[in-house]
Amino acid sequence: MWVNKNKKKILRAVEKFGTPLYIYSEENLLKQIAEYKKAFRGIDVLFCYALKANSNRHLCSLIAGRGFGADVVSGGELRAALSSGFRPEKIIFSGVGKTEEELALALRKNIFFINVESFEELEKLDETASRLGKRADFSIRINPDVDPHTHNYIATGKSGSKFGVDFEEASRMYSWARKRVRLNAVSAHFHLGSQLFSPVPYRKAFKKLLKFVSSLEKSGINLKSLDIGGGWGVKEGLDMGSPAVIAEIIRPYAGKYSFIMEPGRSVTASSGILAARALYRKTSGKRNIVILDAAMNDFIRPSLYGASHPVLNLSGGKGKKVRADIAGPVCESGDFFLKDFKTVLPERGDVLVILSAGAYGYSMSSNYNLRPKPAEVLLKKSGVRLIRKRQSYPEII
Amino acid sequence: MWVNKNKKKILRAVEKFGTPLYIYSEENLLKQIAEYKKAFRGIDVLFCYALKANSNRHLCSLIAGRGFGADVVSGGELRAALSSGFRPEKIIFSGVGKTEEELALALRKNIFFINVESFEELEKLDETASRLGKRADFSIRINPDVDPHTHNYIATGKSGSKFGVDFEEASRMYSWARKRVRLNAVSAHFHLGSQLFSPVPYRKAFKKLLKFVSSLEKSGINLKSLDIGGGWGVKEGLDMGSPAVIAEIIRPYAGKYSFIMEPGRSVTASSGILAARALYRKTSGKRNIVILDAAMNDFIRPSLYGASHPVLNLSGGKGKKVRADIAGPVCESGDFFLKDFKTVLPERGDVLVILSAGAYGYSMSSNYNLRPKPAEVLLKKSGVRLIRKRQSYPEII
Repeated sequence: MWVNKNKKKILRAVEKFGTPLYIYSEENLLKQIAEYKKAFRGIDVLFCYALKANSNRHLCSLIAGRGFGADVVSGGELRAALSSGFRPEKIIFSGVGKTEEELALALRKNIFFINVESFEELEKLDETASRLGKRADFSIRINPDVDPHTHNYIATGKSGSKFGVDFEEASRMYSWARKRVRLNAVSAHFHLGSQLFSPVPYRKAFKKLLKFVSSLEKSGINLKSLDIGGGWGVKEGLDMGSPAVIAEIIRPYAGKYSFIMEPGRSVTASSGILAARALYRKTSGKRNIVILDAAMNDFIRPSLYGASHPVLNLSGGKGKKVRADIAGPVCESGDFFLKDFKTVLPERGDVLVILSAGAYGYSMSSNYNLRPKPAEVLLKKSGVRLIRKRQSYPEII
Repeated sequence: MWVNKNKKKILRAVEKFGTPLYIYSEENLLKQIAEYKKAFRGIDVLFCYALKANSNRHLCSLIAGRGFGADVVSGGELRAALSSGFRPEKIIFSGVGKTEEELALALRKNIFFINVESFEELEKLDETASRLGKRADFSIRINPDVDPHTHNYIATGKSGSKFGVDFEEASRMYSWARKRVRLNAVSAHFHLGSQLFSPVPYRKAFKKLLKFVSSLEKSGINLKSLDIGGGWGVKEGLDMGSPAVIAEIIRPYAGKYSFIMEPGRSVTASSGILAARALYRKTSGKRNIVILDAAMNDFIRPSLYGASHPVLNLSGGKGKKVRADIAGPVCESGDFFLKDFKTVLPERGDVLVILSAGAYGYSMSSNYNLRPKPAEVLLKKSGVRLIRKRQSYPEII
């Protein structure tokens, strides 16, 4: 674990930049990227990093520099991807509610393709492409109706979900698009959700997709590439498991198709922590409560999903263990990081770090309670680099 | 309901400023303020508006202009309160995790008092006041162990909560403070939580507080004012019920004490809506799904608390009713505003408004999916005024 190995560096960064502070490890990030490349060796696959997990420009530049493409879900993310060095021909644009302006931007920038999520969106894409005189390369996001057994909020590939269309509708859409001169089908796509730890749902969905694509071929629609989405899980406090189990599902078809994958969380989650200081200790009823200076506005996953992220005290913490709730200062009972956590009671001023905060951490942060978003730093071999300043008050008031 | 009465004005504002868009009614806001004043007539009460509900400077100026004080929970909110015209002597500072910098700022600005939430915070306040050579006027937030029967995330006055201290600890704190030359006890405080619709929990907590304050008097500690918190509920889609039932609880003691109340949501909730346009319609399984251009990043209450806010289609909506899910474009299954909503299926481009979004709407908004925070406008008798611009891309990337 990079955190224990870099304890001194982390404490120095906290001393210099204050808390709360997002801290990332360059080495660990590059390790996750290398894992993906290794697992899929021999397969023609483009990894499109899902910016929604963490769109910090410096991290994105690192990822783009290793040959990854980008998966974006808004005009903002498309702009961020381009400005951090992802090449347009490696960018795909997903999401259920792309506005006309966003579709136009994607067309003007000549990105790889647009993942279309409804018939009405396909019509809008056709209109927009015609208006601009551009060819629209597209894929259709198909909802394969496979249950990934994850949190309901992050399961996206079951029937009834707002994402994608079913196979029948997709078939109608590809057929309709064939008659439209501006529309060019290049891929078919599924994405099952987030935090998947088993290859089984991927295998089920991929089989369904293969069958569908074969039926399209019979009617003369030949897709060159298949987009099997992202969602490979990372347990809080650990690095991701090897994605080789997913590679082996698609390897038999590597001669026939090129592939796209959209990893997000698995690339960045374990490479980031949120550092905070203990402000006050108190008891309430029989509970010990430790108030940190980081809060749900900085990191909302525990409040929003009930996610349980391990917390380490880097300042020492020797002595008898007690049970304590680790809470933030925001005026909301839901502002908790851990409940009933077995720990040596931290001293005031101790530096505690919340693990696996590299994904859906800063990207979901807000200014609730008019708290500025924290700074972000990157640990490099050569030292610590500030990669985003803490927000200032004039920015948020 | 001001929304139906102002349909044309709202549609013009949407045409001019685009969607998503927060729209507030000045008239309705002033009506809620007047309700509070009317209900508490004859009682010496200072209403401290809880900025966390909505800290837009223009709305705050309106509220400050009607004689209200402010309840702030961070350095950011204290700055915002001062810059929107709340007078320092009418500002109170609450919150479980005030940093030393925040305490120092409050002391330097000579605010009314600081609501202290733990013994350790009281020690820190004493240290900070000594360092600055200032007198620290304080109150202690007491957890009266009264169950308000609301959502767990917004219930704050039960034992085991991170907020406040119990009566025994409060007693020790007041006694300790008496010996500290810098500390000056001026009030005692409880706040039960949010979305309370019955006076019963207030009555229970107030009785306990009275008993406690009497026992303090016996040991020579005389508090002049009592802070009975906020939390008066507003049903989604309606104005608040009259707070007169709370006034009647404290009225018998109006000669003996002055009072502080901290209304937040009840002041602004019903005065704000979030306007959005319908982008696409689709079906998934047997569900109709309507995708709006507003999302959980703009308004997180439905995702975070499962709050159900009524939605109106202002663009017409005549015809047969169906059941539909109203969703946002963010790549998350939790990005829904309403599920299984009975409505005429909106046309693409229709303007839908989410009611009761004036509190905990913009203040909890984020840039998730790199979406800019929406603009905010105020409907005045004289017309529509832009009170905050939509964020630009350079600001969020």
